[in-house]
Amino acid sequence: MPKQVDHEERRAAIVSALWKLAGERGLDRVSLRDTAREAGMSLGQLQHYFATRDDMLVFAMDFISKRTTERVTARVLALDERTPEAILRMCVAEMLPLDDRKRQGSRMSISFYVEALDNERLLSHAREGSRKLLDFFEQQLREAQDRDEIPADRDPRREGMIIMSVVDGLTSYCHLGLHTAEEALAMAMRHLDTLFGAAHETKR
Amino acid sequence: MPKQVDHEERRAAIVSALWKLAGERGLDRVSLRDTAREAGMSLGQLQHYFATRDDMLVFAMDFISKRTTERVTARVLALDERTPEAILRMCVAEMLPLDDRKRQGSRMSISFYVEALDNERLLSHAREGSRKLLDFFEQQLREAQDRDEIPADRDPRREGMIIMSVVDGLTSYCHLGLHTAEEALAMAMRHLDTLFGAAHETKR
Repeated sequence: MPKQVDHEERRAAIVSALWKLAGERGLDRVSLRDTAREAGMSLGQLQHYFATRDDMLVFAMDFISKRTTERVTARVLALDERTPEAILRMCVAEMLPLDDRKRQGSRMSISFYVEALDNERLLSHAREGSRKLLDFFEQQLREAQDRDEIPADRDPRREGMIIMSVVDGLTSYCHLGLHTAEEALAMAMRHLDTLFGAAHETKR
Repeated sequence: MPKQVDHEERRAAIVSALWKLAGERGLDRVSLRDTAREAGMSLGQLQHYFATRDDMLVFAMDFISKRTTERVTARVLALDERTPEAILRMCVAEMLPLDDRKRQGSRMSISFYVEALDNERLLSHAREGSRKLLDFFEQQLREAQDRDEIPADRDPRREGMIIMSVVDGLTSYCHLGLHTAEEALAMAMRHLDTLFGAAHETKR
């Protein structure tokens, strides 16, 4: 009887091989053939899952973002108080490169981003991913505003974009060595303090 | 009599060739040899100016940042009122990819950044450049605080880092197509409104 192949497991192994090679030499220098070799399969076997390099990159982006979403969701569900503020703080902390795995993931995301700038399909994929995150942040901020926890004159979508930008920028400067991830976390939290503190000075 | 060679002009021509090639295929795929060919000189002639690819990249980074500094300085000097707030707003507007040239420059900076992540010499160079910009922002914000234009409880260095991050993040999302550069400018200005407005609600 032939051995059953777990296709999801094989896809995960491919992403893991891609991840490893990208960490070593940069994503742009990783081909389908290299990834097949690293994953211990033939190019033909790999192409059974991903016909093109773009297909593989799109899957890898989705795979990483799905795992991140699962991890953050589990943490949000474990919160004592699931207020918009607590949820936002949790998300921001999870997005920063605070441990080796997140640091590696963040480097990978930067590589994906740069690759996407010259690839219309990856670009529209990355754009939709960012838009979903922005929608989620906006929704949390809108709810916070309804609860009178951020000032009424703040635009929730703009503030959501600012938070995403702050996290991305702080992450870039972490990788550059301008500050540590812990310092970035402290700055991001102080930004949220200011946003949430402005409506309720007396609460703090 | 042999023709005099203007070395600064030749260096500028090399950077211009590098810039063009990087825009076409990504900085990581541009070699010294390609750049020499594009600049219409031999590899040996180019190596008279830059012995290694790293030397060329460091010079190109400096060249671009020097030109940006000159442009921003000229604009600052032309301001009617050289207040810290006006200076910061000018810098932020100049950093955003509001025209084709700045858009191209911003793409180039992103390429430099990614290249630097795997290259210790470029990394320390890029880090020093960012640190200088942060120092300048901090100094402006400290002066604004002394003038009672931003709240006393804000940390000037943190707020400077937040502004740099906001600009970088908004720029990344411009390139991703999540918003236009004009929308990014409006968001960045509203961020500064909030920072400067918080101490003087009545001024607005």
